[in-house]
Amino acid sequence: MKVLRTIPEVREFREGQGKVGFVPTMGAFHDGHLDLMRAAKDSCGRCIVSLFVNPLQFGPHEDLSKYPRQEERDFEMASSVGVDAIFAPNVDSLYGNNQTLVSVGGPSENFEGSRRPGHFQGVATVVLKLFNIVQPTEAWFGLKDLQQCAVLNRMCLDLNLNLQLRFLETRRDERGLARSSRNAYLTEVQREKACELHRTLNSLSQATSDSSLKDLRRMITSASNHLAIHEFEVEYLDLVDPVTFESPEGSLQGCHWIVATKFHGVRLIDNVAVGHSRLLAQ
Amino acid sequence: MKVLRTIPEVREFREGQGKVGFVPTMGAFHDGHLDLMRAAKDSCGRCIVSLFVNPLQFGPHEDLSKYPRQEERDFEMASSVGVDAIFAPNVDSLYGNNQTLVSVGGPSENFEGSRRPGHFQGVATVVLKLFNIVQPTEAWFGLKDLQQCAVLNRMCLDLNLNLQLRFLETRRDERGLARSSRNAYLTEVQREKACELHRTLNSLSQATSDSSLKDLRRMITSASNHLAIHEFEVEYLDLVDPVTFESPEGSLQGCHWIVATKFHGVRLIDNVAVGHSRLLAQ
Repeated sequence: MKVLRTIPEVREFREGQGKVGFVPTMGAFHDGHLDLMRAAKDSCGRCIVSLFVNPLQFGPHEDLSKYPRQEERDFEMASSVGVDAIFAPNVDSLYGNNQTLVSVGGPSENFEGSRRPGHFQGVATVVLKLFNIVQPTEAWFGLKDLQQCAVLNRMCLDLNLNLQLRFLETRRDERGLARSSRNAYLTEVQREKACELHRTLNSLSQATSDSSLKDLRRMITSASNHLAIHEFEVEYLDLVDPVTFESPEGSLQGCHWIVATKFHGVRLIDNVAVGHSRLLAQ
Repeated sequence: MKVLRTIPEVREFREGQGKVGFVPTMGAFHDGHLDLMRAAKDSCGRCIVSLFVNPLQFGPHEDLSKYPRQEERDFEMASSVGVDAIFAPNVDSLYGNNQTLVSVGGPSENFEGSRRPGHFQGVATVVLKLFNIVQPTEAWFGLKDLQQCAVLNRMCLDLNLNLQLRFLETRRDERGLARSSRNAYLTEVQREKACELHRTLNSLSQATSDSSLKDLRRMITSASNHLAIHEFEVEYLDLVDPVTFESPEGSLQGCHWIVATKFHGVRLIDNVAVGHSRLLAQ
């Protein structure tokens, strides 16, 4: 596996190659990342990963400085699943004197977007830069960050990017907790308890059929109370269309239950589709 | 010359081709456009032109509806200089339900940027879309719209676009008036008088050496008064670094005198470099 530090190194590596599957990451790899790398490699025959903790997508009071960093271990993990090259630039070489920002309206506006001002602008800008540097055939993202998937999906459509976005189901541990680099902030006992988040979303999903708006309101209130009893501070809990991130219109099939909570000081987000996700059905 | 109306048609035309020189336009072709097409063709062996009057870059009180449109004549002119394909989409097929905007800070903020809110956001967004659709090796722009050149230059750097921007000197008529589609709004007599704009910029440029800030202030006041006598309402007249669009630091060589005026109700902009332009020297 090649380790690439600069943009010219990536361009040189990419030169004359055919299909490339790309997995943009912030490192601190877990099984969810490895799933994406394997899928990209399987699909395209060649996989490039980027590892860059993007300051532009962190708010001033967020966890940029304490975000888990373990570069050597990440390189070994990526290499072990057949990644061909990993692009790990420093902030200056990627951003230089950057003055350009990409704003995706629509799906970026609510939920994470309204709670983390500038977050999706930071995500869209860095991902577009990485796409232009790596020029992948496919780019792979995990559905764990569902709203990010929706925002990037919108960006690719709107900017006519010549690549295919691919989404992969959320990887969970044996108890159902969604794998996330931020789980490292939790103790083993807390992780055990945090599984209640997923169980709650699963119950909601199974109870959702052609529920009326009134049914949904009742379900949300009841699930929020349930989570509060289990030590979660709920920021939001809702059912959305995963393409627009608006309230569903028509059938609820393919919509997602989404949740954001604070749990023992750690922000956890998760989501579960009702049936087959509409984002995958596009 | 092929006329392409949809994005898939462009992708199909582009498939398997090598170098392509691209000239994005809003139509109403004049010799300045033809210069760009010839240069793109000469440089890359193949030239694609886009013709799209971009609503996103017009303000609510600007001339979108009366902007000159002459598609058949444009097609003939492009064909006559060897253009291989012209992409002329309608608004819906290019924008659909667009929710994404590209904002270039820095060089987009003053002058045209502050007088035409949203203008450069509209320019950057449509040009990025067109770049992603056409995937050119080089893209050619005229220095007449100098600030647009600076904004696109910044965007290409910041978003790591894998293409080369090329700039061409402003084409002028025999009297020195910069060729512009908006000249169509002027009568023959008015065009004759409008040449004073270029003459004034030329004089300023020739008088600029290592002028002090005080000298520059005096030159600006005197030239503005001169233009007012010649029926120009001056919106701005200044000397700028053509890369940053800020006041020059250090040497004035390679900076540009820029001007925007209203002349008999028509907005005219023009610029002249002091020596060899810094934007071309990059």
